[in-house]
Amino acid sequence: MNIGVIGTGAIGQDHIRRITNKLTGGRVVAVSDVDQDRARQVVSDQQLEAKVYANGHDLIRADEVDAVVVTSWGDTHEEYVLSSIAAGKPVFCEKPLATTAEGCRRIVEAELACGKHLVQVGYMRRYDQGYRALKKVLDDGVIGEPLMVHCVHRNPTAPGFKGDMPITDSFVHEIDVLRWLLEDDYVSVQVILPRKTRFAPEDVQDPHIILLETAKGIRIVAEVFVFAQYGYDIQCQVVGEKGIANLPEPAGVVLRKNAKCSVDILMNWKDRFIDAYDVELQDWIRSASRGEMNGPSAWDGYVQAITADACLEAKRTGGIVSIHIPECPEFYKR
Amino acid sequence: MNIGVIGTGAIGQDHIRRITNKLTGGRVVAVSDVDQDRARQVVSDQQLEAKVYANGHDLIRADEVDAVVVTSWGDTHEEYVLSSIAAGKPVFCEKPLATTAEGCRRIVEAELACGKHLVQVGYMRRYDQGYRALKKVLDDGVIGEPLMVHCVHRNPTAPGFKGDMPITDSFVHEIDVLRWLLEDDYVSVQVILPRKTRFAPEDVQDPHIILLETAKGIRIVAEVFVFAQYGYDIQCQVVGEKGIANLPEPAGVVLRKNAKCSVDILMNWKDRFIDAYDVELQDWIRSASRGEMNGPSAWDGYVQAITADACLEAKRTGGIVSIHIPECPEFYKR
Amino acid sequence: MNIGVIGTGAIGQDHIRRITNKLTGGRVVAVSDVDQDRARQVVSDQQLEAKVYANGHDLIRADEVDAVVVTSWGDTHEEYVLSSIAAGKPVFCEKPLATTAEGCRRIVEAELACGKHLVQVGYMRRYDQGYRALKKVLDDGVIGEPLMVHCVHRNPTAPGFKGDMPITDSFVHEIDVLRWLLEDDYVSVQVILPRKTRFAPEDVQDPHIILLETAKGIRIVAEVFVFAQYGYDIQCQVVGEKGIANLPEPAGVVLRKNAKCSVDILMNWKDRFIDAYDVELQDWIRSASRGEMNGPSAWDGYVQAITADACLEAKRTGGIVSIHIPECPEFYKR
Amino acid sequence: MNIGVIGTGAIGQDHIRRITNKLTGGRVVAVSDVDQDRARQVVSDQQLEAKVYANGHDLIRADEVDAVVVTSWGDTHEEYVLSSIAAGKPVFCEKPLATTAEGCRRIVEAELACGKHLVQVGYMRRYDQGYRALKKVLDDGVIGEPLMVHCVHRNPTAPGFKGDMPITDSFVHEIDVLRWLLEDDYVSVQVILPRKTRFAPEDVQDPHIILLETAKGIRIVAEVFVFAQYGYDIQCQVVGEKGIANLPEPAGVVLRKNAKCSVDILMNWKDRFIDAYDVELQDWIRSASRGEMNGPSAWDGYVQAITADACLEAKRTGGIVSIHIPECPEFYKR
Repeated sequence: MNIGVIGTGAIGQDHIRRITNKLTGGRVVAVSDVDQDRARQVVSDQQLEAKVYANGHDLIRADEVDAVVVTSWGDTHEEYVLSSIAAGKPVFCEKPLATTAEGCRRIVEAELACGKHLVQVGYMRRYDQGYRALKKVLDDGVIGEPLMVHCVHRNPTAPGFKGDMPITDSFVHEIDVLRWLLEDDYVSVQVILPRKTRFAPEDVQDPHIILLETAKGIRIVAEVFVFAQYGYDIQCQVVGEKGIANLPEPAGVVLRKNAKCSVDILMNWKDRFIDAYDVELQDWIRSASRGEMNGPSAWDGYVQAITADACLEAKRTGGIVSIHIPECPEFYKR
Repeated sequence: MNIGVIGTGAIGQDHIRRITNKLTGGRVVAVSDVDQDRARQVVSDQQLEAKVYANGHDLIRADEVDAVVVTSWGDTHEEYVLSSIAAGKPVFCEKPLATTAEGCRRIVEAELACGKHLVQVGYMRRYDQGYRALKKVLDDGVIGEPLMVHCVHRNPTAPGFKGDMPITDSFVHEIDVLRWLLEDDYVSVQVILPRKTRFAPEDVQDPHIILLETAKGIRIVAEVFVFAQYGYDIQCQVVGEKGIANLPEPAGVVLRKNAKCSVDILMNWKDRFIDAYDVELQDWIRSASRGEMNGPSAWDGYVQAITADACLEAKRTGGIVSIHIPECPEFYKR
Repeated sequence: MNIGVIGTGAIGQDHIRRITNKLTGGRVVAVSDVDQDRARQVVSDQQLEAKVYANGHDLIRADEVDAVVVTSWGDTHEEYVLSSIAAGKPVFCEKPLATTAEGCRRIVEAELACGKHLVQVGYMRRYDQGYRALKKVLDDGVIGEPLMVHCVHRNPTAPGFKGDMPITDSFVHEIDVLRWLLEDDYVSVQVILPRKTRFAPEDVQDPHIILLETAKGIRIVAEVFVFAQYGYDIQCQVVGEKGIANLPEPAGVVLRKNAKCSVDILMNWKDRFIDAYDVELQDWIRSASRGEMNGPSAWDGYVQAITADACLEAKRTGGIVSIHIPECPEFYKR
Repeated sequence: MNIGVIGTGAIGQDHIRRITNKLTGGRVVAVSDVDQDRARQVVSDQQLEAKVYANGHDLIRADEVDAVVVTSWGDTHEEYVLSSIAAGKPVFCEKPLATTAEGCRRIVEAELACGKHLVQVGYMRRYDQGYRALKKVLDDGVIGEPLMVHCVHRNPTAPGFKGDMPITDSFVHEIDVLRWLLEDDYVSVQVILPRKTRFAPEDVQDPHIILLETAKGIRIVAEVFVFAQYGYDIQCQVVGEKGIANLPEPAGVVLRKNAKCSVDILMNWKDRFIDAYDVELQDWIRSASRGEMNGPSAWDGYVQAITADACLEAKRTGGIVSIHIPECPEFYKR
């Protein structure tokens, strides 16, 4: 599959490297970036046989491009995804699918009109071995019906974070992965603001406690703490009627030294789901080659956007905010 | 110290056995029970040299009694504690101190009027080695200022539980121990009712999620799940600005067998804090003998009752309920 | 039970404190020490109503003394134990029972001649909750027949250790507790000397690997490493036909801080079995009062001495040394 | 790189699948098998564009073949590896390199004569993320100089195992990986035969304890227990002067259910190092394409064979057997 990549920043370069050196079945044949010099540099650095396009839309329409990867700035995602749909080409779009729920809705409508599954959004946790093992436990009924979920999203620090980014940049991953894990939709949300850590900048509330309710009545309690200092720590505990299941923690060397038995905790979020990125993109290449799409869909991106909007309103108002998710079209049901 | 025990049911017998066989410095010289035959039987079974009183108040006033242990039905606690204060004798009262906040207030006022520290309430977790280790970590500043607490109170099953007992019988332990742990007071509470487990009886909501806010802005998220099937499981995680500290779990043999690496989880709540009961009563005997009182005070019992009342109102209304705790009298400050 | 304590050094004082303040059923009524001033000081410090004897043998024979605790220097143990047997009084003797196997044999013969169970040796691990839980797993057949044991005895440092003390002072605990755990006797031993740590003094080999074979063919591999720097760490893993069981590790606060998830490891051996000492001595007081003896017997002390001697020979020769344990007299069988 | 695969049994098929579907930079263009029908079937099943050769040597010499993978029966490894060297083509050979140390020596000599690094042996553990993390800890000096290693190799069952296969088929992995881990060579070995499990067949001793000594004096204690029933369990603990480091265990969902807190243990050895096989073969493809060789060399295979022979002699004699490894040629030093 010949792939065109729009956006050659850090994530774009990572994906190009993956496709070229680690994964099978795909080839980067075209790139574009607002900074054309950077695009050219990447082609040269990674020794690609790829054409550099000045414009993402031209790349999308190019004959040699079978499928598109969008890793440009979030503001441009919507137009490139719509353009890919218009060209009838599979598109893998990094989060967010669009910067507004309205934008996501337009993408959903375009894909519905087109009638082919073309869009995948880059929520990689669904491809993480740990989350998959946890989902299998739930699906196999090992702990009975789930009643509650406790989860934790902690970063050591979040340089550059402003305003609501702990929700819009960090918590969105939980929003996506928990819907998939529980096969359920959200109906309400409440946001609680604990005592603020002195390690967060003045204009960023940190930590948050976010309470989500699902259609089945499952209650999710999520801590989002992005200046937690000690490490990047993602935890997820599902409480079922008959037992409890925990997301596996990364394995590590157990050390006994200096009066402590310890295991290292990751400090960099990139390392936590590093394998999931590979699996995700490999799965997309394979599926897209066959005209299929298994990963997070445009619909998932749309629901995620609606939910995040509700979180922000709940944070602003301090109240319990209803989440109104439209009926899922037949096309998107699995 | 010569001790009179009022109430010779299961807990009363346990305490008598402790005082007689395991602890030092105390002697059971008098017992009473509404069922005098049972009282006599206990004296005989445990080979006590103890007088049996028909009436708890007479026992309290008896010359040979230096100090009183109240383990009778909860409804009678208030009168026996007041009577002990009137007699100027130290009294150890199992929870609840009184069945209403109003009753607790009366005890507080009587003790204040008397001017001597005479009352200790039976919240044993403060004497648990694990909670003490956790408190030391907090007190030493190891994790910086606490911002949040995640805790879990799970029973395998709760035979005989009705109505609000998950709060009034189970969660009260968290109410007491977390105030002590954090050295902070509660200002509001909210109760969330997740999807109910099919293993609870029709008239008992289970599980609950209880959200407490403290004066310092610390947010406590507590899961109370008393028909959790799998075990008796008490967890407490304090999230600080610089790190996380977890209540130790009971140590056990790690087994590798049948494709599993496992450790047993306790099924009986009595085993979880079994050592704490010993430490608690030993400490009371020692302190009371010296005219001191270190354990949970009448004031602690009063605050606990106010908080539990607010929890019940929050459960009933679904809203956020303020907790109004009066100014702590100088007498009770430590 | 009125107890006389011979030897008022650190361990003696600990035992006196235990008997006086923590345990029930015993009272220290007599003490003696080579340093009479120290004995008097202890009586005064601990506010005992106890007579100070210039001579241990006089203390043993004194009318007011019902039972004897021997915590004097190891060299004097044999004579005081023999004297106690001669007086027909129960005696709790700290390890070693005697400094030679020959000395132990004399004690065994004296006790056999006397015909009453009077002697207990202070191997406290049998009273540790963890070892007891492990033994229960074995006794219940949970892991099937034991085939191998891996154990580890590590100290952070061993000030004052000379020559063979890693075996005669440290490993003797494993010698005793593993016989009890496996209900088996040793038939051979081999000692391997790995590369020496630079943290041990010149004249002390450290670490050792000690291989014991039992009558049933169970193979024990023990690492003894007394200058291990990082902590006091006692581990014991029994490998059975159907599974593996591990001695529980001490519970502790799990911390997440500074990129590490950690639990403290004890640095002081005294803390590791602190509860076991209480249980041990309480059990002895209770048993001795009833004319019974449940703990490690004179026979156990004798077998331990024979085994330790074989270890030393194995270390010296580098070969496999047979351990010849005489037939256990009926009197000592359980 | 165009690859020819000799041997299309289970492992051969796995490698073909890897090269074709998961890895990058390689293509299977030729296969051969003693059973030509099976070879043809594999080509058809896996939709390869590959020529089927009746004879492995013809495959090796074929123009379209750049590099060779040998996964045929162990007895044939030597001739195919020699043939590959003669053809000057890189060859990846599954263990054993040859069935005798003598055979391995012939390969070493042929490669030395040829003067190019062409041979890699399929010891995949060196490519396991866990062993690499452990090696990094050692290389960084985190635990100081290593003094001892405790390791465990347990299979739930070993169908078809006969005679010495626990050593020649299972323990050889430890032989290879520990040399690499410690960067040290073996000087002696002793084999201890514990009480036999009733779950092993009559003609297979199980378990073994194998004691290896290295040139630096490090002592390795390895338990090999291939009918251990409960799971496939590979453990490795390195004891250093300043601390202890343990091979990470596979991560898994932590379950709390039925009075147990548990994690699954793998039952199938294939799952334990599944990622390592991918990394190993990818690394070989990449290195071989560049005319390099990073993995276990012919020399490593030779040393492994000498060591395994010494283990067998030690098992037979019960004594301590010296391991004589010739001076490593400059060519093989890293």
